[in-house]
Order: sequence, then structure tokens, then C-alpha cells
Amino acid sequence: MSPIKLDDKQTVVEFLNSFDTFLFDCDGVLWSGTHLLPNVIETLALLKKLNKKVLFVTNNSTKSRQDYTKKFSNFGIDNVTKEQIFSSSFATAIYLKNFTNLDPSKDKIWVFGESGIEKELQEVGFSTIGGSDARLDEPWDQQKTPFLPVDPEVKCVVAGLDTKINFHRLCVTYNYLRDKDVQYVATNIDTTFPGKPYMQPGCGSMINLLTTSSGREEPPNCGKPSQLMLDAVFKAYPELKREKCCMVGDRLNTDIKFGIDGKLGGQLLVLSGVENESCLTDLSHGFILPTFYADKLGDVYEHYTK
Amino acid sequence: MSPIKLDDKQTVVEFLNSFDTFLFDCDGVLWSGTHLLPNVIETLALLKKLNKKVLFVTNNSTKSRQDYTKKFSNFGIDNVTKEQIFSSSFATAIYLKNFTNLDPSKDKIWVFGESGIEKELQEVGFSTIGGSDARLDEPWDQQKTPFLPVDPEVKCVVAGLDTKINFHRLCVTYNYLRDKDVQYVATNIDTTFPGKPYMQPGCGSMINLLTTSSGREEPPNCGKPSQLMLDAVFKAYPELKREKCCMVGDRLNTDIKFGIDGKLGGQLLVLSGVENESCLTDLSHGFILPTFYADKLGDVYEHYTK
Repeated sequence: MSPIKLDDKQTVVEFLNSFDTFLFDCDGVLWSGTHLLPNVIETLALLKKLNKKVLFVTNNSTKSRQDYTKKFSNFGIDNVTKEQIFSSSFATAIYLKNFTNLDPSKDKIWVFGESGIEKELQEVGFSTIGGSDARLDEPWDQQKTPFLPVDPEVKCVVAGLDTKINFHRLCVTYNYLRDKDVQYVATNIDTTFPGKPYMQPGCGSMINLLTTSSGREEPPNCGKPSQLMLDAVFKAYPELKREKCCMVGDRLNTDIKFGIDGKLGGQLLVLSGVENESCLTDLSHGFILPTFYADKLGDVYEHYTK
Repeated sequence: MSPIKLDDKQTVVEFLNSFDTFLFDCDGVLWSGTHLLPNVIETLALLKKLNKKVLFVTNNSTKSRQDYTKKFSNFGIDNVTKEQIFSSSFATAIYLKNFTNLDPSKDKIWVFGESGIEKELQEVGFSTIGGSDARLDEPWDQQKTPFLPVDPEVKCVVAGLDTKINFHRLCVTYNYLRDKDVQYVATNIDTTFPGKPYMQPGCGSMINLLTTSSGREEPPNCGKPSQLMLDAVFKAYPELKREKCCMVGDRLNTDIKFGIDGKLGGQLLVLSGVENESCLTDLSHGFILPTFYADKLGDVYEHYTK
């Protein structure tokens, strides 16, 4: 079925009536880099007034959910709580605690990545080592590193985007991964991430370095479109009904695929991020099509109040 | 034909009579880490006495050939000149100068890697940027980096092992690679390299990070077993006859494959490095077999002088 454009009041009202929960991607939907997109605050306020549940689903692993709430308030989006936020680091923590045989009371985790990963893992009870430990900022010296030999209590490596990547972190992580009994999980596999003005290599590229060197299989990952992320959402909100949920995002191959694979009731593609309208007719992306689309999220508010 | 073991005088004499040039891998053949292997100096002296030509072929790109001669003299192996040494960084320089349309008088090269690459490229006339420039040791700040926007005179990225890998170097390199008109060459693709006591991620793993993030095709590489390395040898010594050359190494899938693919007269596998005798009967490596093998290089001297 062709995607329906949200471009008049009646369509928007029917769209809103179809769902009781909206899951939002953030960058390219709510904001673009450091710039809030138009009528986002008004649209979120409208959803609240209509008693809709609003959740935010981001592949960003570098911040904890608590730290991520500050990003919302910095944009003037108030009253977002950490319980509304699902990041790939939180999804990873939920996955490891609930869907693996790891025991937080005795199994440690080696982290290749930033503090968001450490904080979320610690919040569900795991001890972590590595990650943002400043001793890893020192040059690699295999005779002197305090991080080797490997700690036999480490039963899992979690790897995410690490803008402090260096040879010391790579060498120690590699030596943990050489033991095939140590589990290996990636927060997400986005190969790039946008910066202003420059695009940057993403988590998935760093994962490839670790996977190649260690000769491991590709690890499971907890970022969109992986359903491990949606598992984390339904673990936190078991009362949600998939058919009453709508995923809102700006990327077909992550956000919209995430909603389709998860059998959510609908998906809204907004054209304020990486995609433009031509993606709806160019089917080279493999027939990933949303149920709805709009030029931008703020159109929901603008048409509703016309 | 089954590999012939060099374990008596007659076999060694026939082996030596079959070749006039010996190409040596270094680590695992001449030395192991910081430890010289037995009777290596004596074997090299014997080859010299017999008027054999001796060359050294290493995938190490971090040192220039001139710097690499010091490594030989530190082991007590004297009189090795830079003209005898073929490193993957030198092979890359020869490849770019002779086998591409790059013009050293105006085309610059962005280096992801260490000083050995810069020195060899500069020696054949190229201007390089990036590499060991200390400003790249600073944290990545896309607003402040002096390395972006990209220099339009850069027509090629050369990537090799970089133990100073950091996000700044990765981001700038990635932004050069995004332009598909910029050529992309790897010094070598070894996924790991040995250290004592710890194995370490190698050049090929870093190449995979760059290739994945930029969406580029896998680059050509100039390290063994790539024949671009052998092209550099024959460019420097056009008088060599392949059937009179013997490759000596400790790895089937790099050294011995290099000799076989290059149709050299013979290959000698020494078991003082990564392989042991079982590799000669375990054919899971794809039927790569040397013509000769020995427990160690020094056996040549020991049996010859019996």
C-alpha cells in the first residue's frame, strides 16, 4: 500500500486516532544537530494533551538515559524522563541481564565505548572495567598496561562508539575477544554518524575492526533496526500493544525497518533528516516503505490546529 | 609434490645450488620479537660467501627501510643496506609512482599510518600530509581541526598500521575517502601482528574500519602475498630470474603464497614462527605447500658445515 502523506487535518486526525503510543527517533526528527526542528515542542505537547504515550528510541550509546534527558531540556523539550528514553546502551544492558546467562553478581563486562554504556550496565547491576577509565588514555605499552592479563571474571565484551578509540583500548579489547567463551555484543552497527559539518565514522566501523582482528562472528547488536531494542521497550512496558504503536523516524533502513520488523501498527517517515520524497518511489532500498510520511514532524501540529 | 625437509648436508647443498637469490621474511625467520634465532648470522654469512643475493621482504610499514637497517644491526646482522629491504611502505611508494597515474610533482597523499610510510613516499617524490603530524594527536574537534576541509590536491589515501590511531585521524581520513575520485591503497592487510607477550590488532583490521565507514571497495594492498610487493622487487632488480629465486618465510598464507603466486623457483618454510610441521599435512589452508621446509633457518648453516 502506498504511504499516506500527512498533509491535511482529516488525515492527521485519523493518524492520531490510530495509535496510543509513539516511538520517536531523535536526530533528524526532533532536532538536526544542534538545531531544534519547527513545531516539535507543539507536536509533543499535542500528543500529551491527547493522552498518548511518547517514547524516544536512539542508537546513541555514548550518553546514559539520565544524561540524555538534559539534551531534551537543552532544546526546551521539558519533562522528558529517563523512563521514556531507550538508547542502544540501555537496550544492551536489558538484553544482557534478561536474555543471556550472564550473572550480574559475578560476571564482569569489559567495555569498549563511552560512559553511557558503563552507566547503563552498572544500573542493572553489572561491574564494568575498561570503557572511560583514564588509564586507557595512556599510550599502549604491553609490558606496563594495568589491564592485562585478562581478568578471568570478564565474561562479556560490550562494544560501542568510542571517540576515545586508541591502540591501548583496541589491544586490550582484542585480547578479551580472543577467548571465544567471552560473549561479544555491539550496542549498534551504524557505520557512520552525522556531525556538523562533517560526517564521522560510526560504531559499526569500529565493531568491524574488532571483529576482523579477533576473527569473531559478527556480534548481536541492540540498536535499531535490531529487535533486541524493541525487546527492551516491551520489557519495560509490557502493557503496550504493537498494533497501537507508531514508529516515527527519518531513516528507512533503521527506523522504518525497525517498526516494520517489529510489527508495529504504523510507521511515520519524516523528510527532515536523511531521506527525501524520492525514496518512496525508488525501491532500491528493498521495499521498505512506511505507512505514513510527512515533510516534518511539526506538520502534525500544524494541520491538526488548522 | 611433498615438501623436502632440509635435514642433511646433501639436501642443503642441492637447495643452495638451485637458487642465486633468497628473499627473507624477517620476524619468525631471522628473529622472534626481540630474540635473534640460532645460527641466523652464520647462515647469512654462508649465503654471502656463496655469492648469493639476499633481500628482505617485510609487511612492516611503520619504519622506513633506512630505519629498518638499524633493527638488523641491533641484532648483530651487519652490512644490510636499505637497497636489500622491501617493506610494504616502500612497495606502496613504488606502486604509486610507477603503476598509477599519480604525479608526484602535484598530487599529494593523505597518510593514515606511521613515519615509515611518509618517508618512503617522500623519497619517491610525493608530498604527504597527515600521518605522524603531532596536531593529529589532539582530540577531534570538527570546528577546529586544521586538517579539514579536505585539501583538493590530495589524490590518494595510503593507509597502514597506525599505533597512534585516534578519532581525529579516523575522521579526517574518512572525509578524504568519501570522495571516490581519491585513490585508496593499503600497505598490507594482516589482521593481527605478534607482540610479546600479547598479539595485537593489525593493519588489515584498521583498513576494515576505514573501508566500512567510507563505503569504499577493498583497496589494493602492497604487502605479501600481494604481487604488488614482488613488482617492487623486480622494478628495483630487473635482472632477477624468478626461477632462481627462493622465498623464505614462516607463514604459509603470506610468505609461501607470495612465492608460489609469484612463480618463484622455490619456497622454504621455516617452523620457527607461526607454523608447525602439522601444517604440511593439514590441507585446510587450501593446498599452499612450500617446496622445502626446515625446523629453522640456522639448519642451513648447521647441515652445510657438518
